[in-house]
Amino acid sequence: MKIIKNSTPAADGFYMPAEFEPHQGCIMIFPERADSWQYGAYAARKAFVQVAEAIARSEQVTVCASAAQYDNARAMMPAHIRVVEMSSNDAWARDYAPTFVKKYGEIRGIDWGFNAWGGLRDGLYFPWDKDNAMARKLCDLFGKDIYDKRDFILEGGSIHVDGEGTCMVTETCLLSEGRNPDKTKEEIEETLREYLGVSKVIWLPCGIYQDETNEHVDNICAFIKPGEVVLAWTEDRDDPQYAMSEACLKALEQATDARGRKIRVHKLPLPKPVMMTAEECEGLDACHDEPTRMPGERLAASYVNFYIANQHIVMPGFGDPADEKAREILQKLFPEREVVQIYARDILIGGGNIHCITQQIPE
Amino acid sequence: MKIIKNSTPAADGFYMPAEFEPHQGCIMIFPERADSWQYGAYAARKAFVQVAEAIARSEQVTVCASAAQYDNARAMMPAHIRVVEMSSNDAWARDYAPTFVKKYGEIRGIDWGFNAWGGLRDGLYFPWDKDNAMARKLCDLFGKDIYDKRDFILEGGSIHVDGEGTCMVTETCLLSEGRNPDKTKEEIEETLREYLGVSKVIWLPCGIYQDETNEHVDNICAFIKPGEVVLAWTEDRDDPQYAMSEACLKALEQATDARGRKIRVHKLPLPKPVMMTAEECEGLDACHDEPTRMPGERLAASYVNFYIANQHIVMPGFGDPADEKAREILQKLFPEREVVQIYARDILIGGGNIHCITQQIPE
Repeated sequence: MKIIKNSTPAADGFYMPAEFEPHQGCIMIFPERADSWQYGAYAARKAFVQVAEAIARSEQVTVCASAAQYDNARAMMPAHIRVVEMSSNDAWARDYAPTFVKKYGEIRGIDWGFNAWGGLRDGLYFPWDKDNAMARKLCDLFGKDIYDKRDFILEGGSIHVDGEGTCMVTETCLLSEGRNPDKTKEEIEETLREYLGVSKVIWLPCGIYQDETNEHVDNICAFIKPGEVVLAWTEDRDDPQYAMSEACLKALEQATDARGRKIRVHKLPLPKPVMMTAEECEGLDACHDEPTRMPGERLAASYVNFYIANQHIVMPGFGDPADEKAREILQKLFPEREVVQIYARDILIGGGNIHCITQQIPE
Repeated sequence: MKIIKNSTPAADGFYMPAEFEPHQGCIMIFPERADSWQYGAYAARKAFVQVAEAIARSEQVTVCASAAQYDNARAMMPAHIRVVEMSSNDAWARDYAPTFVKKYGEIRGIDWGFNAWGGLRDGLYFPWDKDNAMARKLCDLFGKDIYDKRDFILEGGSIHVDGEGTCMVTETCLLSEGRNPDKTKEEIEETLREYLGVSKVIWLPCGIYQDETNEHVDNICAFIKPGEVVLAWTEDRDDPQYAMSEACLKALEQATDARGRKIRVHKLPLPKPVMMTAEECEGLDACHDEPTRMPGERLAASYVNFYIANQHIVMPGFGDPADEKAREILQKLFPEREVVQIYARDILIGGGNIHCITQQIPE
């Protein structure tokens, strides 16, 4: 693995393909952290296995497990899913596995800086050194060279691309004080252009209410093809999410993409607010002497947090009446892929969802 | 990775290719154990890096490092050598990385039982669980299916094959009380036939004096091509090794291989006895409350412990006048490969040599 320090993907002719383009595989991480996953992560692991199995129906899945959890991960995952030993601080492959860029047949990684979604200012745990080391380890494992951009804090869940020159982000996240406070919006755009090979950045104002990642774009809005997105939506005007989704809709209506297209928006309903129960809270270790979650705390549930596999859409369900409607909408939008819906409350409790725990490797 | 329990390589048409056949790569493990490698393993690691570099001149090398040593291993190894996280109890890839068998283009592994060269009877450390888990982890990493033979204790260094139906072993090792005491010699031969795909087993009586593996064959005798071996040899009749090498020579002179050929023996001189110094002993942690080595203790130095890479022979040197002679002999025997000699005292102190710390993956 070569670490590339003196060039950028765009300068070398590389760009980030869209998630709906073909994959050679998917990376996941086995959950273990006791202040993220309730009751020893047993339920979360079962959900992760279901996600891995669904993705593995149409692409190769590699699951990273710590030395301590390797045997358990290997026993729980089906034989056709690869399990490798790799340390991490938690299980969010989207955010610290490499962002992959492509040029004809060659794939390279990007090693962004990772500081647990806000570092010492509003990050979610400390330390985050093992997470931050994963991008390089994974590129070494997969035999890909990697661009060193550790001086810029970015998580994979905070960007979406259409593969045709457009990137979509949220202002709350990319302009947060805990990431790159010395950089202007223009400088941040410039970094996205240089590293993702895009020419246009669409800024949404915000994301999902109470999303502790500073509102990653991947929980509120996703490209389903160039020029078309799904947007998490509620009709409940009393929900703080209403104004947030509406603000995003306005931004999208005013936007054009890198090719000058207007953006077509498909609304995806949100489930009713999902709250932590007292029993769930009792099954979580404290994080830095503070309770990780409180009973009644609202979680950032959203159907937008799905993964686009080669022949499947792997989406969350919450046991909500909207589950089926959201599934039907996605199935219509992705007529050539089979939608697999997985009950994901146990992933959501950790703070993210199916898109957050996966990272695709382009073909 | 599929674990194959109800068949054997021979029954499935697989056999173990000889080391001098083409490789797709080589596995090594980064040394760390404080009762094996003197003074924090710093000198040993430098020697391991030299070995990896020499092999990587003609094949892909993957180095396994613990989570604790990963960063250091990655920093010490050149960029073109892959470093992956993997736990182990020590660094003897030959003995617990999988033995690979082949059938046309397909490669599979064998998962032998490993008990640290003799288990609770005369094994060298406890526990050995991480070593014993490596064969499966490596097959998973490399995407190979693996035969489960954990009910049979065998290390890769205790067998040599000619790739044409012949296996060579030592009686001291394979008939030792610490390995498979309930199996007769005939039953052990049968297992070798079934798993290595051989039809003939040549039994040498013993190996190198003081070799704490119960005298692995790979330290005394190696195939250089079908029908020809190198044998570690001394002309010093006062050396206990003299009778041992002579006994092996007699066994070889009386043997025929699987194709009925007599064995041609090339004598490879031994270095003068190599002894532990007091200073070296002071740099080793105790092992289970016992000193690991004593000043003046003789080490099992032998030039036979070389690795056959695709285009190189990577052999040890000991700063002995015989270094050059041994090098010349091997260079003549392998005219199409370049012999690279690496000063290996720091590997030898750990209890083995270059062949012991490497495992080839056939092409």
